[in-house]
Amino acid sequence: MQFWFDFGSTYSYVAALRIEDECARAGVAVEYKPFLLGPIFTELLGIKDSPFNAQPVRGRYMWRDLERLCEKYAIPWRRPTVFPRNSLLAARVACCAGTSIGPLTRAIFRANFVDDRDIADPDVLRQVIDSVGVDGARLVEAAQTPPVKARLRVQTSEAQRLGIFGAPDFVVNGELFFGQDRLEDAIAWAKRA
Amino acid sequence: MQFWFDFGSTYSYVAALRIEDECARAGVAVEYKPFLLGPIFTELLGIKDSPFNAQPVRGRYMWRDLERLCEKYAIPWRRPTVFPRNSLLAARVACCAGTSIGPLTRAIFRANFVDDRDIADPDVLRQVIDSVGVDGARLVEAAQTPPVKARLRVQTSEAQRLGIFGAPDFVVNGELFFGQDRLEDAIAWAKRA
Repeated sequence: MQFWFDFGSTYSYVAALRIEDECARAGVAVEYKPFLLGPIFTELLGIKDSPFNAQPVRGRYMWRDLERLCEKYAIPWRRPTVFPRNSLLAARVACCAGTSIGPLTRAIFRANFVDDRDIADPDVLRQVIDSVGVDGARLVEAAQTPPVKARLRVQTSEAQRLGIFGAPDFVVNGELFFGQDRLEDAIAWAKRA
Repeated sequence: MQFWFDFGSTYSYVAALRIEDECARAGVAVEYKPFLLGPIFTELLGIKDSPFNAQPVRGRYMWRDLERLCEKYAIPWRRPTVFPRNSLLAARVACCAGTSIGPLTRAIFRANFVDDRDIADPDVLRQVIDSVGVDGARLVEAAQTPPVKARLRVQTSEAQRLGIFGAPDFVVNGELFFGQDRLEDAIAWAKRA
């Protein structure tokens, strides 16, 4: 099952902290697919911000909903002081994380949504990467090379091709499930397939 | 638990066909709250159409998702030839349906999303109302009187006051849950309260 996410997305955070346990229980393998929501929102909605900021009534709901969801799933939560954080460098890091992608993804999400740290800052990212036992300096440098930049662009184009218009998403054999609350449905689809 | 819905809304249809069984199982009472999404979309998004039409990528996802959801919940489904159907008269009918509101709501939703009938047509509505053992001619006439028109306007304003920006929604002691896939969360909240 593919897990499509953006490090700036609140609901992606919830999915990222749940997906390994839920998929392990079901015997379903997870493939991490970081991408950027920004270009997609710009193309679809003509905005350069999160729809949760552009539409305050949706934003108010989302912040309350996140509190409830994190309580329900017993995962830590602190509303970040900056939203959305620029997720470009973090997504590039994830594109070259190799087999560390799972722990690294969770650590970056926690930095944003538990520790309220600026995940666009290379120093912050280096520390976060180091904290999961990977060489932060090396990975942040690799993340800024042309092949990795190209990989993220390709991945974001692939998200658009799949019909993705928000995050997180789960894709099983071309079937798209949008929203963290559809994780169980996606897993059921994967087991059925 | 309040159930806020619009007769033109596909996900409201799914919720309407599930809610009585789910709430009965949990011992939670349902209060039906018909309202109009149209004025809310116009105010929030500046559009006079469904966001699923205004954003085709979201629309494509929604139609596929509805097929999957109806299969999952074993409820009938046929994609209507007109979307969204004008739900004004149907919502007014629901506003004066009294104790018949449950069966009447399900019958109107089925007319739109199973039988592909035009629920904006007074003749269609009369037949649908008759089919649940209520006097269709009387109810359609009552629906077009000033007090009932006012009741629907008040209800739509109340939806806006609650922070509603889409449908369906479930409200429990002021807590808003948006989306048919949050029905279980809303019921859990009602039982906890």
